[in-house]
Amino acid sequence: MIPGPTMVSPRVLRILSKPVVSHWSEEFKRGFLEALELTRMLFQTEGHPFILSGSGTLGMEAAIANVVERGDRVLCVENGFFGERWSEIVEAHGGVVEHLTFQWGEPIDPRLVEEKLSEGDYKALTVEHVDTSTGIANPLEEIGRVARGTDAVCIVDAVCGVGGMPLKMDEWGLDLCLTGSQKALGAPPGLTLLCLNEKAWGVVESRRTPVADYFADLRRWGPIMKDPSGYFATPPTGMVLGLLEALRLIAEEGLENRWRRHRAFSEAFRAGLGAIGLGSFPAEGYEAHTVSVVKVPEGVDDAELRRVMRERHGVTIAGGLGRLKGKTIRVGHMGTVTVADLTATMSSLEMALKSLGYELRLGSGVGALEERLLPYLSES
Amino acid sequence: MIPGPTMVSPRVLRILSKPVVSHWSEEFKRGFLEALELTRMLFQTEGHPFILSGSGTLGMEAAIANVVERGDRVLCVENGFFGERWSEIVEAHGGVVEHLTFQWGEPIDPRLVEEKLSEGDYKALTVEHVDTSTGIANPLEEIGRVARGTDAVCIVDAVCGVGGMPLKMDEWGLDLCLTGSQKALGAPPGLTLLCLNEKAWGVVESRRTPVADYFADLRRWGPIMKDPSGYFATPPTGMVLGLLEALRLIAEEGLENRWRRHRAFSEAFRAGLGAIGLGSFPAEGYEAHTVSVVKVPEGVDDAELRRVMRERHGVTIAGGLGRLKGKTIRVGHMGTVTVADLTATMSSLEMALKSLGYELRLGSGVGALEERLLPYLSES
Repeated sequence: MIPGPTMVSPRVLRILSKPVVSHWSEEFKRGFLEALELTRMLFQTEGHPFILSGSGTLGMEAAIANVVERGDRVLCVENGFFGERWSEIVEAHGGVVEHLTFQWGEPIDPRLVEEKLSEGDYKALTVEHVDTSTGIANPLEEIGRVARGTDAVCIVDAVCGVGGMPLKMDEWGLDLCLTGSQKALGAPPGLTLLCLNEKAWGVVESRRTPVADYFADLRRWGPIMKDPSGYFATPPTGMVLGLLEALRLIAEEGLENRWRRHRAFSEAFRAGLGAIGLGSFPAEGYEAHTVSVVKVPEGVDDAELRRVMRERHGVTIAGGLGRLKGKTIRVGHMGTVTVADLTATMSSLEMALKSLGYELRLGSGVGALEERLLPYLSES
Repeated sequence: MIPGPTMVSPRVLRILSKPVVSHWSEEFKRGFLEALELTRMLFQTEGHPFILSGSGTLGMEAAIANVVERGDRVLCVENGFFGERWSEIVEAHGGVVEHLTFQWGEPIDPRLVEEKLSEGDYKALTVEHVDTSTGIANPLEEIGRVARGTDAVCIVDAVCGVGGMPLKMDEWGLDLCLTGSQKALGAPPGLTLLCLNEKAWGVVESRRTPVADYFADLRRWGPIMKDPSGYFATPPTGMVLGLLEALRLIAEEGLENRWRRHRAFSEAFRAGLGAIGLGSFPAEGYEAHTVSVVKVPEGVDDAELRRVMRERHGVTIAGGLGRLKGKTIRVGHMGTVTVADLTATMSSLEMALKSLGYELRLGSGVGALEERLLPYLSES
């Protein structure tokens, strides 16, 4: 129950255990093209999809390396650990960073983004969909709206969001979105997926200087994403076919149904947390549907709490990241997570807290979770 | 039977089909450290091992991005498609390339490398262990010897060699070696492995300028490779555990036994090729033990030959790369390949050639292969 890598379906595991196929086999080429098409569905775009071997961090780097040229100004809109990474990547590639920083856990104010964008000649802005460190979901629709009227390429790290909560790239005016395979998509870690709309792709195509990166140079990969008969670097064939199966599962569930399920699960989980006196870290109304970041109550040691849950109940959750280490715990509830996973996790949390001396009425968290979840389950 | 991705053992496939584990689980951390230790065994070094998510091309890029600074001179020693890639990567990272080019298929002359190195102030030289495009194995021991006395970091792309034929990093004075998971290692594609000795690591540590790359910045990864409790980017947990199983299989077979097997298989396969009148592309005495690159005889269409083998006999081999497209076929015989795979491939080649009008005595290739292989099989 960590916020990624998440559990994957047995259907995906079965694909991963099949004999390796050649990257030039018909089976792989067909599967790769289908996975690319489903990637567009996932991001809700008619844009250019890419699937590369590497982690989501490579996807972030590919975004910057291709869009930003040495000396270009980039507005890094930050309110958490992952948001703050963007500026390091921009600087590694010679871009000039302007920070627009909000408190960790506080939402981004789109009016301030608009103000900043109007002041300077920005090549791009960067923003997180969900910052996994704080559990916040940023108001992407509004941010896209203010970016749309400018020349700045709106770059979104959707690693912990897409596939679990609404993201409509074309409708919202987001220009470049990326994710990793291991979160709400329900595939194993090892792949990064990107989509660029015509605005973003146009910026990449009209660069004055070459991309100072080889493996992440999207123009080298471009032809392969249209016709996998070509060669640039060996794709991880099994991983791609595993991802395809995960994307098919998303298509079968229906993206909107999946968003609804994640919303219902996260609201129910938060209701349970509230009933046992635990508070969410991110600002109310901005909680992600994929992950809950929870304040550790006074007097409880977070490492001990996680150890008890893991060793006694077999439930693994994550600790805080960066400056929230020791102060928060993080529970992922995305991808293939089930009702049973959710209730068992809440129950484990209750028992572990109780055994560590925290006062609560056993069953009250699970009860509140059930009460909140029942209407959704009855209608679905 | 293509030169990668190669078939993997059912033992590896079984690992890949296990439920996803967290990158912070004890199971993963232990496995990762063991895989890193086995990586040192694989490269025969006491140096610094790295396992990254990405293809071998990312490994090549990591080598250049970390060692080479803007304006540094690099000697790119080239005699094939992959050798020629190095210069593109060096230039992408602002290095100044000096080419030392040999005919495709002709071996590198270490004396000319020595001469070049003595002329200029080189930060590094790049060379292929096996260039998969031509099937040549370059004289690394001699090249390492001439590089050892200089300040140049000797960077080796061992993607199609290591694990299948001798490579002794420390003994031969090779400073930075890398590979992909999908060739002679017998793991699926998706990981790149690198080792740096103290000379190479010292150069990385004493850079004057930051690495103009984020994901491939080895100093960011360094601490994780010593203690996987840290975090930089999510490692592909399942893939790493799959690789570990493949590396354990190598350790169980014994690296020297594995080299011997690959040598015996390749010599036997070439004996079979000779018996049916097919010539090897690379210069005699320099043939790789992992892949055979074979001249397509006059009057035979290589695509048709491959199609017949694939569709009628279920044997997949590869076509030529780059300027050898249409002129050569490539047969991989590395990693988990068996005697049965080898004989079936030779038999398929005979039948397909015959049906395409090429004159040969059926069975003669397989016969010669058997004759050459028997002494090895009897003693092993």
